Order: sequence, then C-alpha cells, then structure tokens
Amino acid sequence: MLETASGLYANLGPDIMRRLDALALFSEDGDGVTRRFATREHRQAAEMIQSWMRDAGMTAHMDAVGNVIGRYEATTINAPALLIGSHQDTVREGGKYDGAMGIVTPITCIGILNNAGERFPFAIEVIAFCDEEGVRFNSTLLGSRAIAGSFDKAVLTTTDSDGKPMAEALRKFGVDPDGIASLARPAAGILGFVELHIEQGPVLEEENLALGVVTAIAGGTRMSAKITGFAGHAGTVPMARRNDALTAAAEAILAIERYCSSAPGLVGTVGRISAAPGAVNVIPGEAVFTIDIRAGDDAVRRQAVAAVRAEIETICARRGVRLAVDVFHESDGCQCAPWLMDQLEAAVIAIGQPPKRLMSGAGHDGMAMARVTDVGMLFVRCKGGISHHPAESITAGDAALSAQTLLQFIRKFEPKNEI
Amino acid sequence: MLETASGLYANLGPDIMRRLDALALFSEDGDGVTRRFATREHRQAAEMIQSWMRDAGMTAHMDAVGNVIGRYEATTINAPALLIGSHQDTVREGGKYDGAMGIVTPITCIGILNNAGERFPFAIEVIAFCDEEGVRFNSTLLGSRAIAGSFDKAVLTTTDSDGKPMAEALRKFGVDPDGIASLARPAAGILGFVELHIEQGPVLEEENLALGVVTAIAGGTRMSAKITGFAGHAGTVPMARRNDALTAAAEAILAIERYCSSAPGLVGTVGRISAAPGAVNVIPGEAVFTIDIRAGDDAVRRQAVAAVRAEIETICARRGVRLAVDVFHESDGCQCAPWLMDQLEAAVIAIGQPPKRLMSGAGHDGMAMARVTDVGMLFVRCKGGISHHPAESITAGDAALSAQTLLQFIRKFEPKNEI
Repeated sequence: MLETASGLYANLGPDIMRRLDALALFSEDGDGVTRRFATREHRQAAEMIQSWMRDAGMTAHMDAVGNVIGRYEATTINAPALLIGSHQDTVREGGKYDGAMGIVTPITCIGILNNAGERFPFAIEVIAFCDEEGVRFNSTLLGSRAIAGSFDKAVLTTTDSDGKPMAEALRKFGVDPDGIASLARPAAGILGFVELHIEQGPVLEEENLALGVVTAIAGGTRMSAKITGFAGHAGTVPMARRNDALTAAAEAILAIERYCSSAPGLVGTVGRISAAPGAVNVIPGEAVFTIDIRAGDDAVRRQAVAAVRAEIETICARRGVRLAVDVFHESDGCQCAPWLMDQLEAAVIAIGQPPKRLMSGAGHDGMAMARVTDVGMLFVRCKGGISHHPAESITAGDAALSAQTLLQFIRKFEPKNEI
Repeated sequence: MLETASGLYANLGPDIMRRLDALALFSEDGDGVTRRFATREHRQAAEMIQSWMRDAGMTAHMDAVGNVIGRYEATTINAPALLIGSHQDTVREGGKYDGAMGIVTPITCIGILNNAGERFPFAIEVIAFCDEEGVRFNSTLLGSRAIAGSFDKAVLTTTDSDGKPMAEALRKFGVDPDGIASLARPAAGILGFVELHIEQGPVLEEENLALGVVTAIAGGTRMSAKITGFAGHAGTVPMARRNDALTAAAEAILAIERYCSSAPGLVGTVGRISAAPGAVNVIPGEAVFTIDIRAGDDAVRRQAVAAVRAEIETICARRGVRLAVDVFHESDGCQCAPWLMDQLEAAVIAIGQPPKRLMSGAGHDGMAMARVTDVGMLFVRCKGGISHHPAESITAGDAALSAQTLLQFIRKFEPKNEI
C-alpha cells in the first residue's frame, strides 16, 4: 500500500507542522525556542508529547531522568522493541525542528498505524530524550546515556548557572534521580534505534533532495592552540625580523582547511581567534584559536588531528614562534548499522525519492544509543542548512515525505535477527 | 678635538642616564612612565628641563602650547638656529627613553660646549615638544605642529577622557592657547631640525651597532577590513560548501605579509582580529581585522595598499565572501634631508662608529617639522627593540656615543646655505 499526498496522507505534512508549532510554544522568553532540561517548559512539552502518544494508541510515561517514552505494543506481549526518537530540548534561541521533528513525526506515524489497526511482531517505542544539547548543565546526551547504561552519576552534582545541582533540579522537576541507574535497557529487548532529524547542513538542499540516510555520526576533537611570538612596534620591526604570532596562526588556519578538504567526510574549523596585545599598530605576540576537527571515521579524524598538529608545529618552528595545543574535548564517532541504512534507503526509494547517503557532522543521541543497540538515522532537508537558530525551517512537503519513509520503514522492518 | 671615554667625556653616559632617571620621576602612578600633555607631571618635567637648559648656558621658556624651548646663542645676535629636540610626553606606562633621550642628550651636549666656551655662527635651540604621542586628546604632534605652523585650532575643542576641552586644559596648565597661532616659526630663521631618538626597533641591536642615521620617517595607512561569509555548523557543512570568513581572512593576512616582505622599508601588520559568532563549533560568518601598512616612500606604500586590497578582493571573490575595507588613518612619510644625513653620518664615523642608515617605522615630530625645515634623525640602539613599555632600555655607553656624535655634528655643522 503506497498512499499518495492526495490520498490517505493528504494532511500528513500539515499535521506534523502544526504539532511542531505547538511544541515550540513551550519555550522560555526570547527569539525562537529555548527549552532546557528539567525546566517548566520541559515539563509542559513532556505533557503534550505524552498526550499525543496516548492519542496515537501508545502507553506513555516519563522516566527518572526526564525522558518521555511511549510504547506501541506488538502483536504479542513482551516483544522486543524498535526504538525511534530524538530529543525534546533545544539550544538557547534555537529552532522548532532540531529534535522535535524526530519526536512528532514517529508519533504521528504510529497514530496512522493505530488508526489502520496495523501491529507488528515487534513493539515500537518512541522516546523523547530529555537532554541532548547539554545547555543547562554542560553535559550532553543525558537521556540516551541513561537508557544506554552509560549515565555518569557524577554529573548529578554538576550545577547550572544558578548554582543548582542537577539532582536537585530533577527532584524539583518531579522525578527521582535515584531511579536513573535502573533505566539502562538490556540489549536483548531492543531491535535497534532509529532517529529522524533535520540535516542541520546544506547538502540535501544543494542536491535538491528531501531525504538522506546517515552513514555515521562524526566523532570530534576540539583543541585550543596558543602561539607565542614576540610583540613589537608595527612600524619599527622589519618583516624579516618578526616573530608574528598571528601570521603563524593564519598559516595554521589555512593548513587546517587544506588538510580537512583532502578527505571526504572530514571537516575542520577554526571558529574563534584572538590576537594580543590586539592593537592596530602592534605586531601580535600571541594568537589563540580553537580547532574543531570531525570525521565519520575515527581513524581518519585521529590521523587528521595528528597531521594538522604536526603541520602547525612545522609552521611555528619555521617562524620562530612557540605552539601549545590543548585537546579539551574528544568523542569517538558512531557508525550507522549497514542493515538499518539499507532498510531506511529501501524505504526512501519505495516512496519515490532518490537514495542519498551522507555523514552527520553534528552529534546525536545515536552516539549514546550505539552502546546498547544498532543505530540508523534519516536526515530531512532544512532551509539553507541553518540550525540552532530561530530561522531553522523545513517544508510541510518534506515533513510528509519523511513520515511516509518512516511508515514504509516500519511496515517493512526486518530485525537483524529473528525475534 | 676628539675626546675618549676616559677623558673629558668619562661621565657623559652616566650623566645622561641620571637625568633620564630623574625625568622619569615625573610620572602618574603605574608601571613605567606616564606623562601626558598639560598635566601636573608635564609641568614638573618642564621645570626640570628649563633648569637643566639654564645650567647649560641657554635661555629657556615655555611657549603657549606647552613646548619648552632653550636657546644657546650664536657668536652673533639674531643668528638663525639649528633646532634639536624631541618630545617630553610618553604613552601610558611607557619607558624612560622614548622622547626624553632626545631632550636630555642635546642639553647635556650644550652644557659641555658652554663649559668649553664654544659658540658657533648659528644658534642652537633645544625643544622639548609638549605632545607627540597624542595620548590625552588623540591628536599627535601638537608641539611640533605649532612650531611648523600646521597646528589645527579645531583640536583645541577636542576633549580628554574626562570631557575637558584642550583649550581649558592648557589654561589650567598655565599657558594661553590664544598664543599658539603666533608660535609658527618663519623658515628663514631655522637651519634644520635634528632629533635624537631610541630606535624602538631591533635593527641596530641585531646588527651590533649603537647608532643609525634615519633615511625617512615612514608614512602609514591604517585600515579595517570586514569579511562577511556565511556562518554554519562546524560539523554539518562540508569543506567545499563553506564560505568561511576567517579562512579568507587568514589568506588575506598571509597576502599582506608576503607583499610587504617584497620591498625593503615596507612593513604590513595585522594587529587585531576577531571572528563572529566566535564559537568553537561554528564556522565564522564574519571576520574583522586591522591592516597597518608603512613605508619610507609614500609611493611604495600607496602601491602596497592598492596591491594588498586588490589581492584580498581576489581572495574574497574566489571564496564567495564579501569584503569591506575602511581606511581610517593615512599619513604621508617624511624624507630626511640628504645633507643632514651626510653630516650626521660623518659624525658617527668621526667618533669611530660604523655608518648605518635605516628607516623609521614609527612616527616622530620630524613629520611635522618637515613642513618648515629640513629634518635629520639619529637613532640609538635600544634593548630588544622594546619601546612603549616599562622595559624600554638603553646603555650608558650608547648614550655617551650618541652624545659624542651630536657634539661632533654640532661642531662640524655646515648649514645648507651660507648664513
């Protein structure tokens, strides 16, 4: 059964968009959407999401860390479950679609399945993770880590900008953090985890495609580099006698760009820079900048980090300036499971869309979920690649296509091993 | 008569250093020396300088803009004068030698001439200019402009950081700004202007030389450049699809360095830079930086500015980012008079030092004085090229060599035209 937009699914896109608009109302003041972990807005959104889940024929509850979980039962009781979900939280002044899209769409799809009386040998659970962005406590992937069994109890003592510890915030929010340890799901009960998410990049739009199957979630290394040269008078020190920290940094920035352009799926960014003392007429004695290197393949990333560091060392040695590099964040990437990629791609093709595979440069809950189960992701085109911004935008048509793909995927879903 | 350090001039270096230490006492609180225009410290220093001038057999007075002028009469009355001088003011937390060296040394030399009963067919005037650095009112070369007849009356209404207008500050200081217009000296009465100054750069020290004759005071162009690209997620935008403002700026910085290394006497500096939004994981959508280009030859500088701008335009066009350049300061350079350079160099050689000519990248009062007379400058080695800093340092030996050179120069001085 493949319905057309004029048929059974005529309202699918608008329905999803309406729910996304509704969810966006649960926001702190300011532009766009600000919905942080364990806040009143989180609670409001969680109530709305549970209500939609129940409407769609699911049981729904909030767990001890603030995840909302809805379960659409299988044809048998206690069947293993296909997990589908994304995160309910946003960055400060973010958009309506990052995260929310991957909660609203599967709920809407299950509503259609429920209305049609379609059930499967496997259960489907939709999870609205409590905190992927890590805005409030600087700790990302809290909800998915809890379910994957990698939640670090130590983060419960970290405090938000008001000095409130996470454990206290959770109790005030209405859940019992002592219950988090027991949220870890045994792998046996899970068939896989699939997430639908906006691309947050320009690839699909530029290739005129609505959908893409994610091959890997990039791992990332973040460094800060400090180059120390010698400050001097911009008029009195001849070019050949300078040890300019900023020209060394400029050469480093171009080396990073050049190296990271050499391999597909590798990206490198210098996002922040300063030069000291920072006067128009003084040669910089110090330059400080950040380096963010990501790749779907961890070996490619590690090689890039080593190569870039070595190249910057060479630049600095040649220029007679000193280099200090501090790696302040490092996370391994997550390969999507080929069998899930294949089934997602088959669904894309089945609804008449061209297949496309691409890497995710941004982090997602799948990185945590991969610890306990196979992971697959479907990307949806977003306007201009803009995300983490009030201008984040998708079309109702693309929302409908993503929902049709998910429906197709669920209906044709073949677990990796027999149930 | 060429005295050795063990003879008549045995105490010359220590005497000069002692006076420089004494002058440094007239400072606002803080590290190093802070002596701003028309302040109590300016008044204190002016009294000390006039006292030294009178001790050296000169008449001394303060003029209507705050310059201190001492005159050592010629063998005849109303003879034209050789002007020698430098500035009494400092930057905030500057050193003891910038400016002060060029006041104390000629006064000390004239004391020696006076003690020996040596007079010449020309008078010698030592000028302690009131404000070269422009720290208090953001207007440089106030004293030399007044004498050269290029003082702009409009600056009298500019205010300091406390909101006090310059005219009011001068009256409170004890001079009458209405008298500034009449300070302009007719060219006929002046034989030339010579300044002794620390190099403020590393050239003499690196070439193991105490003294250098300045060929030109560099003109300068200061610009701010703003590159506008597209911000984006550091993980999700492939390298080939970026319009990174900072990588464009990095290429621009290296282009400036490369071009300005191509001609002797040309220097180019990027001293300040920022990237926005300025997060480790966001591709910069905007980069703003300053460009300072100087050359002894104005044509070389103008060509460099044009070439660098064109090259940055090309870089930005190729990278799909926009460039806006604002020229916020431009001053023409000042060529030193060959006849003064020759006589200064002859004096350097006569005291047994190797000849060396070099450009001044920093600005000096000679830039204003060149409007009314020929200009020459003698540079003295300073430690590490450091200036505008409490660590500014020279040796007593170099102070003695500079004084011996100045004495030799005065004794052998031949005006360009017969008196």
